[in-house]
Amino acid sequence: MTLTILVAPSGFKESLSVDDVTRAIGEGIRRAMPEARILNAPMVDGGEGTVQALVRATGGRIIPARVTGPVGAPVDSFFGLMGGPGPRTAVIEMAAAAGLSLVPRDRRNPMLTTSYGVGELILAALDAGVDRILIGCGDSGINDGGAGLAQALGARLLDFDDAEIGPGGGELLWLHRIDTSLLDPRLKRVQIDAAVNWHNMLLGPKGVARVFGPQKGATPSQVEDLDAAMRRWAAAIRASTGHDVGQAQGAGASGGVGAGLIAFAGATLHPRFDIIQQYLDFDRLLDQADLVITAEGSLDGQSPYGKVPCEVGRRAEARGVPTIALAGTIGRGVNQTFDHGISAFASILKRPCTLEEAIRDGEKLLRRAAEDALRMMSVGLRLSDQKRAA
Amino acid sequence: MTLTILVAPSGFKESLSVDDVTRAIGEGIRRAMPEARILNAPMVDGGEGTVQALVRATGGRIIPARVTGPVGAPVDSFFGLMGGPGPRTAVIEMAAAAGLSLVPRDRRNPMLTTSYGVGELILAALDAGVDRILIGCGDSGINDGGAGLAQALGARLLDFDDAEIGPGGGELLWLHRIDTSLLDPRLKRVQIDAAVNWHNMLLGPKGVARVFGPQKGATPSQVEDLDAAMRRWAAAIRASTGHDVGQAQGAGASGGVGAGLIAFAGATLHPRFDIIQQYLDFDRLLDQADLVITAEGSLDGQSPYGKVPCEVGRRAEARGVPTIALAGTIGRGVNQTFDHGISAFASILKRPCTLEEAIRDGEKLLRRAAEDALRMMSVGLRLSDQKRAA
Repeated sequence: MTLTILVAPSGFKESLSVDDVTRAIGEGIRRAMPEARILNAPMVDGGEGTVQALVRATGGRIIPARVTGPVGAPVDSFFGLMGGPGPRTAVIEMAAAAGLSLVPRDRRNPMLTTSYGVGELILAALDAGVDRILIGCGDSGINDGGAGLAQALGARLLDFDDAEIGPGGGELLWLHRIDTSLLDPRLKRVQIDAAVNWHNMLLGPKGVARVFGPQKGATPSQVEDLDAAMRRWAAAIRASTGHDVGQAQGAGASGGVGAGLIAFAGATLHPRFDIIQQYLDFDRLLDQADLVITAEGSLDGQSPYGKVPCEVGRRAEARGVPTIALAGTIGRGVNQTFDHGISAFASILKRPCTLEEAIRDGEKLLRRAAEDALRMMSVGLRLSDQKRAA
Repeated sequence: MTLTILVAPSGFKESLSVDDVTRAIGEGIRRAMPEARILNAPMVDGGEGTVQALVRATGGRIIPARVTGPVGAPVDSFFGLMGGPGPRTAVIEMAAAAGLSLVPRDRRNPMLTTSYGVGELILAALDAGVDRILIGCGDSGINDGGAGLAQALGARLLDFDDAEIGPGGGELLWLHRIDTSLLDPRLKRVQIDAAVNWHNMLLGPKGVARVFGPQKGATPSQVEDLDAAMRRWAAAIRASTGHDVGQAQGAGASGGVGAGLIAFAGATLHPRFDIIQQYLDFDRLLDQADLVITAEGSLDGQSPYGKVPCEVGRRAEARGVPTIALAGTIGRGVNQTFDHGISAFASILKRPCTLEEAIRDGEKLLRRAAEDALRMMSVGLRLSDQKRAA
C-alpha cells in the first residue's frame, strides 16, 4: 500500500524555519517509508520565510528586487513566483522590505521607519505580469500604517502646504489630505490578498501603536504620538477613499500596513492560515492525501485556538484524513486536540534534556520523530493486514 | 477490530518495579483502546519483585512464611503460588530470604550471611504440595555458595571433627565432607528450576567472590578467603554428589546459591528470561496476542544483547507478532533493535526535563506513552481500512 502523506507543519519558534521543519519531516518519512509519496504544504504565518517556503513547496522561483529599506537605505529584497497550476501568482513577505531585522538596533524608531519598500515589491510583481499577489504580513519593523506603501504605489500624502510628507509614522501627524489620482492603475486589474493576524486593530486601546510600538523601539511618548498619527491617518483614508480602516479586522497588522493595503492596493485581508491554505490549494492536496503530518514547537490545550496543528487537523478531518502532530513539548490539556482534528501526537524528545539542547538538535530530533511516528503507525497497517488475513 | 495486546515489560531500574510498569502500560492501553484485551507477562529478572509480579500476572496468591534471615534473625518472608492452568507451581525469590536489603548496612559481611532461609522457603513450598518450583535468583546479600540452603534442606556440612559448621561463606574454609543422606526426600519428586544470570561462575578470576563480594561488603582479604572457601565448597560437592559446580553456567549466581541449588535441590539452572517466559507460558500468550508492548529504562544499541525488549521482541517476531518498545531514554544505535524484533519505539518523555524529573513522573509518563503509542498505531489501522474501502 503506497501512502500519500501531506506535510503541513508550522515553523518552530526561535529554532527552525517552517522550511527546515518541512524538510526534516520529509526526510524522516522517507527513512520509514521510502515508497511514500510526499506533498508539502508549509504552514507559513506571513512573516519571515513565507516566500521561501511557498516557492519551494510549489516549485516556483525567487525574483530579486532592490527596494527602499525601512530606514531609507536600499536593501536587496525579493519576491516569489509560485509554481504549479492556476493563475500566475506572486508572493511577497513585507518583512523582506520593512522587517524588524532590517532595522539596525540603534535606529529602531518607528516614528521614522517606512513601509515604502513593500509598495515597491508590489510594483515589481506587477511588472512581472502576475494575476494575483499574496502578501504575507508579520515580523515588521515599522508603524506607518502603510503610508510608505501608499506613496510607493502612487498616492500623494500632502500636508497643509500641499507638500508631500516624509517617511515614517511620525510624519502622519502633519497629514492634511490624500491624492489617489496617480495610484498605479494596474492595481485594479490584479487580485491582492494579504495574510494577517486577524485580531490586530489599527486604533484604540489594543491599537497597533500601543500593542506593538514598544517592541519596535518606541518610547512611551512616541507611542502616544504614533497612536495620534494612526487616528489622523485613518481619518484621511476615510475622507479620500471611504474605507473605515479604524474598525477593520487585521488593519493593524504589521505596523498598520494592513490599513494601507486595504485603502490603496485594493487588497482583501484574511486570517493568515485561511488564505495561505487557499494559495497552497490545500484542499486539492488533501484530496490526494491519505495522511497529514503537522508540527509546532508546542502542542497543548491552547493549540485548538488558532495554532497551526489544529487549523490543519480540522480541515483534514473534514475531508476524512487523519492528522499526526509532532511537537517539541507536549503540554497540559493536550487531549483537547483530539476534538480538533488531531488523531495522534508524539514529542520529538528521546531522552532527558534541556530546552536549549532540544532547540540545538531540533532538526535531527524532528527527522527522527517523523520516522518513529510512521514506524509506530505502520504497526497498525501491519496488524490490520494480519487480522484480515486471519 | 478488537486487539489482544500482550504487555511484557522490564522494570525501570531505580524507578519503577516491573509490576508498576505493567500496570501503567495497561492503563494507557485502556485509555486509547477501551475494548482491547490485555494480557500481562511482566519480564521479571528473578530479583526483588519477581514473586509479586508473577502472582499478579497469573492471578495467583502470596503465602507468608517466617524464615531465617541472612544475618540469622528471623524475617517475615513469603513465596507465591501461581494461578492459571498447568501444574501446581510455587515461585520463590531468594532475595526475600537472603537479599541484600535484609542485611543491615553495619552487618554487611558475606563471610557470615547465610542462604538458610532460601532452603526454608523451598521446604514451605513443598509443604504446600506443589509440583514445581521456580526460584528467582538476584539481589542477594550472601556469598555462601548455597551452603545455608543445603543445610536447611537436610544436608550436613561437617568439619574434621564431624561437627556441623556454622552459617556464612567463611565457615566453608573448615568444611571436610558433606552428608546428603538426610536431604528432604520430597525434593526428588518436584521439578525445580532456577532463573539465574547465566554468566555468573562460582570459581576463577570471574568467580562470585571476586566479582560480587565487594558490593556485599567483603574486604579485599575477605574476598580471598571467600574465593578459597568456594573452591573448598566445590571440591566437597564434587566428592559427595558428583556435580561439577565449579564449571557450571550460573552456579555463581546470587552469592553462589546456584551451586547449592544444583547439588542439593536437584534444580536446573536457566538463563533468567528463558525460564521465566516458560513459567509464564509466554508462547501460549503470544499465540493469542496481536501485538506486544515491551518497555525498559533505556533502548539503544546494547538492547539486542540480553535486554528484555529484544528478548521479548525476537520471540514475538518468531510468531509473527509485532512488538512496540517504550523507553525513558532512546539512545545511540537504537535502529539495531529493528533487526531484533522491535517494530517501533517511543520515548516516554513529552517535554525537556531532567533525568530526576523523568524518574519522579515515570509512572504517569509511561501511562501516557502507552496511550499515545496506541493512538499513533491506530492511525495505521484507520488508514488501512480507508484504503481498502476506497
